Amino acid sequence: MSSAVPVLDFGSMTQVIHFLMEIDKLKSIQRRTKVIGTQRQENSAEHSWHFAIAAMSLAPYASKEVDIQRVIQMALLHDIVEIDAGDVFVYDLAARAAIHDQEVAAAKRLFGLLPEPQCEHFTALWQEYEEGESADAQFATVLDRSMPMLMNLHNEGQSWIENNVSLEQVLARNGMIANIYPELWQYLFRHLQDAQRKGWLK
Amino acid sequence: MSSAVPVLDFGSMTQVIHFLMEIDKLKSIQRRTKVIGTQRQENSAEHSWHFAIAAMSLAPYASKEVDIQRVIQMALLHDIVEIDAGDVFVYDLAARAAIHDQEVAAAKRLFGLLPEPQCEHFTALWQEYEEGESADAQFATVLDRSMPMLMNLHNEGQSWIENNVSLEQVLARNGMIANIYPELWQYLFRHLQDAQRKGWLK
Repeated sequence: MSSAVPVLDFGSMTQVIHFLMEIDKLKSIQRRTKVIGTQRQENSAEHSWHFAIAAMSLAPYASKEVDIQRVIQMALLHDIVEIDAGDVFVYDLAARAAIHDQEVAAAKRLFGLLPEPQCEHFTALWQEYEEGESADAQFATVLDRSMPMLMNLHNEGQSWIENNVSLEQVLARNGMIANIYPELWQYLFRHLQDAQRKGWLK
Repeated sequence: MSSAVPVLDFGSMTQVIHFLMEIDKLKSIQRRTKVIGTQRQENSAEHSWHFAIAAMSLAPYASKEVDIQRVIQMALLHDIVEIDAGDVFVYDLAARAAIHDQEVAAAKRLFGLLPEPQCEHFTALWQEYEEGESADAQFATVLDRSMPMLMNLHNEGQSWIENNVSLEQVLARNGMIANIYPELWQYLFRHLQDAQRKGWLK
């Protein structure tokens, strides 16, 4: 899949340092969204940073059940599996379903580079995020879905236009936000309708 | 400086969303270090992600006084001031001293985009990191300094060679790691000496 990173001796930290160098590859996984006002596609590492900062910044708006520290950690590691499995566009539902087994194998290989306690912690957080049932995972999913919508709304619909996305698709895929974070959805919904009027969404 | 990001109405979240779109610009601040095995310089947003994941992964090796959640938050926001002040090479000591006032003004402008509670929280964490005196700030500094060294050790000394850096400079600037995280320094020191023998450091 990707080229080997040398393993240097760091005593009891050898596995962790090797993991950290291996996941440098997330900086080369490209998404559809471009950095605002540029022609460069953002990568999954910088997206993960943006998502984690969003969790920190929006913490006061989360419901009381949400532990924002766990959401931040989910943000930091939610895309690491893409190093082996690749990024799949959020509106490509067939590809998303097909890739699930590859992502499970990727989590096993990548988090498996870590010592047992960190491996267990990271794997459990990633699985919880994927399952999307806990309050923390639901809030994390809202933020992960919202970031590219917000970027499109501030970047003249760039990735929607380039990928021929319709308002109907955006509503179907992201309407769950209405249940989890109704205040955010109320404004997003209005801006999405505006975006369609401007021709940014089909 | 940088172009204006449109401000969209998100009710009580308007300021936070504007802040999140403004800091998208951190993805365009380039560092000297290149993504391992590529010719692309990493940017400060993806570096911040890498540093935050390092904090998560190395948590079991931190001293008991360290609150790793605060270190993760410091990692996420420590470089945001570079949006206005730019990135200065860690070995350019004159430039680092000269830029301090610009960074303070940048923190004021950028964190000032947020509502009062988040502004105060982010500013206080950034100041604590800059002062480098608390146990959390010291552990954060060790990780921030270690990441580019680790990347160089795994990437044939790329940024050291390109910027004509000597072993003496690296030891003078990073020797503080020996006091804060002696086990890590023991291994780093050995690999840095190896790097000099290989011609990666002067």
